[in-house]
Amino acid sequence: MTAELFADRHIGPGPDDERRMLDTVGYASIDELMDAAIPEVIRWHGRLDLPPPASEPEALAELRALAARNTVAVSMIGLGYHGTHTPAVIRRNVLESPAWYTAYTPYQPEISQGRLEALLNFQTMVSDLTGLATANASMLDEGTAAAEAMTLARRASKSPSRVYVVDADALPQTIAVIAGRAEPLGIEVRVLDLDVEPLPAEFFGVHLQYPGASGAVRDHAPLVEAAHGVGALVTVAADLLALTLLRPPGEIGADIAAGTTQRFGVPMGFGGPHAGYLAVRDGLARMLPGRLVGVSRDAAGAPAYRLALQTREQHIRREKATSNICTAQVLLAVMAGMYAVYHGPDGLREIAARTHRMAARLAVGLRAGGVDVADVGFFDTVTARVPGRAAQVVDEARRRGVNLRLVDADRVGVACDETTTDAHLAMVWAAFGVDGVDGEVPAAMPAGLARTSDFLTHPVFRTHRSETAMLRYLRRLADFDYALDRGMIPLGSCTMKLNATTEMEPVSWAEFADIHPLAPREQTAGYRELIGQLERWLAEVTGYDAVSVQPNAGSQGELAGLLAIRAWQHSRGERHRDVCLIPSSAHGTNAASAVMAGMRVVVVGCDDDGNVDLVDLDAKIDAHRDTLAAIMVTYPSTHGVYETGIASLCAKVHDAGGQVYVDGANLNALVGFARPGRFGADVSHLNLHKTFCIPHGGGGPGVGPVAVRAHLAPFLPGDPAGAPVDGRPAIAAARYGSAGILPIPWAYLRMMGADGLARATGVAVLAANYVAARLRDHFPVLYAGNKGLVAHECILDLRPVTKATGVSVDDVAKRLIDYGFHAPTMSFPVAGTLMVEPTESEDLAELDRFCDAMIAIRAEIDKVGSGEWPAGDNPLANAPHTAVMVGGDDWPHPYPRSVGAWPGGVDRAGKYWPPVRRVDGGYGDRNLVCSCPSPQAYES
Amino acid sequence: MTAELFADRHIGPGPDDERRMLDTVGYASIDELMDAAIPEVIRWHGRLDLPPPASEPEALAELRALAARNTVAVSMIGLGYHGTHTPAVIRRNVLESPAWYTAYTPYQPEISQGRLEALLNFQTMVSDLTGLATANASMLDEGTAAAEAMTLARRASKSPSRVYVVDADALPQTIAVIAGRAEPLGIEVRVLDLDVEPLPAEFFGVHLQYPGASGAVRDHAPLVEAAHGVGALVTVAADLLALTLLRPPGEIGADIAAGTTQRFGVPMGFGGPHAGYLAVRDGLARMLPGRLVGVSRDAAGAPAYRLALQTREQHIRREKATSNICTAQVLLAVMAGMYAVYHGPDGLREIAARTHRMAARLAVGLRAGGVDVADVGFFDTVTARVPGRAAQVVDEARRRGVNLRLVDADRVGVACDETTTDAHLAMVWAAFGVDGVDGEVPAAMPAGLARTSDFLTHPVFRTHRSETAMLRYLRRLADFDYALDRGMIPLGSCTMKLNATTEMEPVSWAEFADIHPLAPREQTAGYRELIGQLERWLAEVTGYDAVSVQPNAGSQGELAGLLAIRAWQHSRGERHRDVCLIPSSAHGTNAASAVMAGMRVVVVGCDDDGNVDLVDLDAKIDAHRDTLAAIMVTYPSTHGVYETGIASLCAKVHDAGGQVYVDGANLNALVGFARPGRFGADVSHLNLHKTFCIPHGGGGPGVGPVAVRAHLAPFLPGDPAGAPVDGRPAIAAARYGSAGILPIPWAYLRMMGADGLARATGVAVLAANYVAARLRDHFPVLYAGNKGLVAHECILDLRPVTKATGVSVDDVAKRLIDYGFHAPTMSFPVAGTLMVEPTESEDLAELDRFCDAMIAIRAEIDKVGSGEWPAGDNPLANAPHTAVMVGGDDWPHPYPRSVGAWPGGVDRAGKYWPPVRRVDGGYGDRNLVCSCPSPQAYES
Repeated sequence: MTAELFADRHIGPGPDDERRMLDTVGYASIDELMDAAIPEVIRWHGRLDLPPPASEPEALAELRALAARNTVAVSMIGLGYHGTHTPAVIRRNVLESPAWYTAYTPYQPEISQGRLEALLNFQTMVSDLTGLATANASMLDEGTAAAEAMTLARRASKSPSRVYVVDADALPQTIAVIAGRAEPLGIEVRVLDLDVEPLPAEFFGVHLQYPGASGAVRDHAPLVEAAHGVGALVTVAADLLALTLLRPPGEIGADIAAGTTQRFGVPMGFGGPHAGYLAVRDGLARMLPGRLVGVSRDAAGAPAYRLALQTREQHIRREKATSNICTAQVLLAVMAGMYAVYHGPDGLREIAARTHRMAARLAVGLRAGGVDVADVGFFDTVTARVPGRAAQVVDEARRRGVNLRLVDADRVGVACDETTTDAHLAMVWAAFGVDGVDGEVPAAMPAGLARTSDFLTHPVFRTHRSETAMLRYLRRLADFDYALDRGMIPLGSCTMKLNATTEMEPVSWAEFADIHPLAPREQTAGYRELIGQLERWLAEVTGYDAVSVQPNAGSQGELAGLLAIRAWQHSRGERHRDVCLIPSSAHGTNAASAVMAGMRVVVVGCDDDGNVDLVDLDAKIDAHRDTLAAIMVTYPSTHGVYETGIASLCAKVHDAGGQVYVDGANLNALVGFARPGRFGADVSHLNLHKTFCIPHGGGGPGVGPVAVRAHLAPFLPGDPAGAPVDGRPAIAAARYGSAGILPIPWAYLRMMGADGLARATGVAVLAANYVAARLRDHFPVLYAGNKGLVAHECILDLRPVTKATGVSVDDVAKRLIDYGFHAPTMSFPVAGTLMVEPTESEDLAELDRFCDAMIAIRAEIDKVGSGEWPAGDNPLANAPHTAVMVGGDDWPHPYPRSVGAWPGGVDRAGKYWPPVRRVDGGYGDRNLVCSCPSPQAYES
Repeated sequence: MTAELFADRHIGPGPDDERRMLDTVGYASIDELMDAAIPEVIRWHGRLDLPPPASEPEALAELRALAARNTVAVSMIGLGYHGTHTPAVIRRNVLESPAWYTAYTPYQPEISQGRLEALLNFQTMVSDLTGLATANASMLDEGTAAAEAMTLARRASKSPSRVYVVDADALPQTIAVIAGRAEPLGIEVRVLDLDVEPLPAEFFGVHLQYPGASGAVRDHAPLVEAAHGVGALVTVAADLLALTLLRPPGEIGADIAAGTTQRFGVPMGFGGPHAGYLAVRDGLARMLPGRLVGVSRDAAGAPAYRLALQTREQHIRREKATSNICTAQVLLAVMAGMYAVYHGPDGLREIAARTHRMAARLAVGLRAGGVDVADVGFFDTVTARVPGRAAQVVDEARRRGVNLRLVDADRVGVACDETTTDAHLAMVWAAFGVDGVDGEVPAAMPAGLARTSDFLTHPVFRTHRSETAMLRYLRRLADFDYALDRGMIPLGSCTMKLNATTEMEPVSWAEFADIHPLAPREQTAGYRELIGQLERWLAEVTGYDAVSVQPNAGSQGELAGLLAIRAWQHSRGERHRDVCLIPSSAHGTNAASAVMAGMRVVVVGCDDDGNVDLVDLDAKIDAHRDTLAAIMVTYPSTHGVYETGIASLCAKVHDAGGQVYVDGANLNALVGFARPGRFGADVSHLNLHKTFCIPHGGGGPGVGPVAVRAHLAPFLPGDPAGAPVDGRPAIAAARYGSAGILPIPWAYLRMMGADGLARATGVAVLAANYVAARLRDHFPVLYAGNKGLVAHECILDLRPVTKATGVSVDDVAKRLIDYGFHAPTMSFPVAGTLMVEPTESEDLAELDRFCDAMIAIRAEIDKVGSGEWPAGDNPLANAPHTAVMVGGDDWPHPYPRSVGAWPGGVDRAGKYWPPVRRVDGGYGDRNLVCSCPSPQAYES
């Protein structure tokens, strides 16, 4: 009496499809195919020790039970995490809308205008509120944003100093993350109480909190002046809501602002995910890490958005990179930006004012009852002094359903937010044993710091005040974009598989969404059990001994893993080991992470088949034997091949005293068939947003747990809110990183079970080989491993046709839009190629639709090659075709409109139309505009 | 310290907009406008006694608290309401998707192809499973479907008998609804135990349940033969899930099948809403009540869906109508149809088989423990005999968390469903005090009734097996349609206002969704409190004394109201009163409802201004003074005018001994300013899906509460599950009708408060007058009341331009699609006109966009009139323009493509493209196809 298997819904091809695909590839069964594809030396023949698969309703019921073990209390802990009302229209139509959450990073701007506009709103909001010239499209959290601000300051400062000053009233977790990043880079962090301690004579930067963690709002202008006097840069970590009332960092001369946008409608989620932000003054834009949306123009000269200045990013700069930031927090940035769009400047100001009035009344009530509240200006947070009684007050409040911050034995912090009510104040007063007060009280912000400048003046922030208007704006933007809910996104290395609704639903539940990361332990039992199970299951899947889910992106998992290696080697007295070998085919992020971990990158070459060149490896090991720290390899390789030399590679590195880091980006090709922790690796990071079904969200959130063998377990990330532990740096601002989305991989593992996971891997490999088999005669398949098989992705080599016809990989990628597809990965890992990863979730009809499109495009290329169509004016060169172009009164092109719009068998009525023509990236980089352009810019 | 007002989100125009609109209309304030517009004789100057408005988070918190007072138990009560797993992908992407739930009834087929296809799937599913030729696009519930089957049988039968036989094993609530409908029509219902009692010698129809309420599966073939022998028709009320395993009604000769599709993924919702179904054999299709989707072709000859055979519908046939069915259950029918699409025939068969295995094992376990289980074949329901012990067993089960059916003192019913687990069986066995059994047991269905025929053979039911495929299919269909999430739907009389997300969210919560209508009282405390509050608030808003939410559509509210009048008059010995006066301008449904209530319709004329002709009224009253039962009027009138004669009208009718029924369709123009229960009316129905924000769902669900003055309160609808009470017929199958969506109007009223509601009315009236003022110079505004003002809608007279240019109201409606709008109401209440109701939710930008479009269209009409464009080939005649047309290689038309596609200022990038050209309705009616056409039909 079995219920329906979730695996049958997750995996696209059914039994008939599978048989036809196997026939094409030439194998009798998936087992036989996998036996042939995976080198026996790594092949694992066990069965994962996971609970038997739950059906979707069963998994939801179990998640409900876990959720019920969390307690949603009134959170007044503050410290950068605040209660907020997510507008329901945004929750339903962004967070819960597949059109937004299944989208990929907007590298193909023509089919990403909706989320690019939403991100531009976000950037404009941050830029306006901070008073700085340029903001990027989000950071992972406030802590990592602050750490990136530090390294940016180091790059930009003319001071030779390695000293970075941090305000003692900064958020504790920010200090922890900054310290963790500084140490491997040789930066000395000095935490100073700047109210009493002087600035050092030399330093390259200073981090100030505004308002402080204590709630105090200080005039930082004198410190800014002092810092600039010694050539140091100033970062102000500012609360954006407070900035609606307070003079912004840009107006007191700050160079950089960093922080979080969580309280702009993004639930706390036990620590994340939320969108951090980073903004800089004029002159620093080109040094900003992370993604930056800019305005450019399309082939018809119309304004069009796209990611700007990509050449400065880690995946291009590799070992010259200064940041490894890759994934951002797009979905959350969209939410925060839309919160500002919906409330507008007046609404935000009113929310801030109301929050402040609550805090002011709270303070007056406490003082009226004889409680000592420091006589400083504040915005939303009050620190009360109750000598020796702090724990008792916090306990009493908890009993009444309110969580407060226990600062120390004598002090209690209370933070108000937009959800604070009179009833909450009454509970707090009662916990302190005072009566409180009624009615209005005077404002308590420093009068001299009142904001006088306007903000959010762009019409987008002033014309979506009704829910109807907001709903339509969200729909309009969503309709501009192509996401998994429209069709296949065959991106190599990105594993764009199903994000099942059952996996997504719990993310919105209050018991997961509305939990502060520092909520008392007894209120988070459900979360901790879920996380514990998830870590155990991930360890089982990967064959490692311990897992930490703290890293909130793959890049952060890489850093955490490398730092664990480094700390372990240091603990053994091997501080001299600092060389990290990285194959030339690696993701650029690998090299950037190694640099951030304080390592020197040494590149190992690849042979003609794309495998690590074992001869060169020997040479590099020999050259660096004494200083060898680690090797970072991706498996299966970034070429989509199961390299047979992997076991030998691991042995060689180990023999030389190095550690082996296996990048888990391609784990989707291994699950159930091979376990890195058992075939020779010491550490891996996983991408839960690839293999384990967290949606890409248009470019984040991601989760990048780090998994290690036992000897490295003591060096997993530490608790950013706890006392610092040597060798256990905090990687993210919250202990469990983006805990709020961990129900997604939990549900996936719980519903797939051992057999479902292995079947998914087998079908993913089958699908890639099916595509390779169908397309091989039309485009060379660049690399293959055992018996000519690829792993879970295949590389189509366009260089020969480009050489022969001038049709570029870009032309093909854009032409695929006309056929109703998102392009595969372009020119990675090999320039001039397309890397296709179909994943297990696409059924045969969709795989065939893609293969048919590629074959039809090949025929189109041949028409260019034969001269039937001119090189500069053909359906490939002009792709993608918009409706405006195809329906234009003039049609000057040498092919019919229908060939432009509906080539081959493209669904006519249901066609996806991109809103812009091909976007000119260079123009935008030369004319950098990173906030909302005026409506006049769109007049045609 | 006020939180944000929801009214500011619900109401589109802000203060600046309002001022500009008032300037245009020529009033200084909304109060002044309303003073001028509303006749003082009905004007109410009080303030509604409602709780002060809650913010959105506050309302959600209160709803959470109410929900927490309901208990979600394991429901094994059965009786037509079963546990079901709504596939999460359908819940999120249909039930929770504005693209589906904010859509209007698909009267404009070109912009409704998505939901029309979904309904065609539903019809095909019902037709295939029942084995009958034609199914309609859903009924309100099983009870009303069965009642409609009875009247259909009466019309179709050649027997002169007025006797209708009903199987004693029919669902109790079905018997109650049938009895309620039969009485006013003079039909005699005989409930017979057909196992032992013979059929009467003469009868016109018989209703059989399959399987019976007891669970018994009988071979009805002999009864069918006997019925046909005397010229009677046979209705089989069949469980669609059972029909995957059992010989379908069509194969045993049934003429009609009726029932519900609730268990196909639609939550029980404490009784509704769910989609009922009705299917008929060949030859009866044109007698089917309700909406019927058929396949036709568009102007290019491509297949296109639309509502078929509309001329047979109540709104056309008026007093000749045989059914008053209007609203259907589209949203729920879409869900049920998609459940079949997702599971396919094999999946449904497996769900049915699993359900049966559970029931069979349950029975074996009971028998093994010595419990007497009748020796009949069954599908999912077992009736156990425990003499004298039934209540005790049911209580014991309830303590264990399972609800069973208490049949009588000696018998307990237990129904299994797809959610039944081994643990549930164990709880039931324990409640009976038996041990139960393990393992497989033999099937217990009558072998001779096994289904042998195939079903759901169309590819749509066989190609959406993965969640990815399902998600994309739902998106594809949603993208075909135009709903409120794209733009304005200015439908007169339909009040297409905001359906706020906060109102919608609670509908999905298990505590509201997963409650059986017969769950024990203590498990439904939250529901009953919510319903009680809602009924009180609605009484306050309307000025009546009592309200019943049972009617699950406006038409049903009309019937309930008229039956209350009739029962009151009968109770006073005035059985002779049977004349219902209805103005010629009334909704057709009014007349149809009067006929169903056993009344004779007498039409009262209207004067040239569209008002009820008081002279004719006097004459008609005089002519029918002794038999006058009631008058039904709509207020404001269907012409969108506040008639000043209303008070006088009420007095005249009352003086003649009649009752006054005010149709509440236009209540949106009164709330807060006038109360029908206080200006002379005795009864009204309301449309919660108009004034009170239940979304139209593409044509249902609706809720049509009936509100009455005190003297009629004893005659409100009775409990369909209770003992029959004279004069209190059951109107719907469940006591509280579509209880599952009542949180929507509750939240609306709770969040708007008295002032918000009045402001909404004022802005709705302002918006209509603004549109009238802007368009008056371009199209005559047909009627106006006080000082030339309209109420909440205005009628644009196109007859002069049609006469002058040949451009029809249809041309203008279709051309509006090109401009990005849903058409206004066409040719109602006056042929050749458009009735525009903007509602309060549209902001000024959208109102202006609409007015600009209408003005631009007027200029286009003039070009046709002047001969610049030929009459048969111009942008109006060819509207709507599809992308395929505009981007076609040929363009034979005498105007540029851009004029066809992007007239005036239409948003180019964000344009909505209809998937088909103008649909030819007549062709489809002549060539009736009401189930999915083969894919080959779409080959172009």
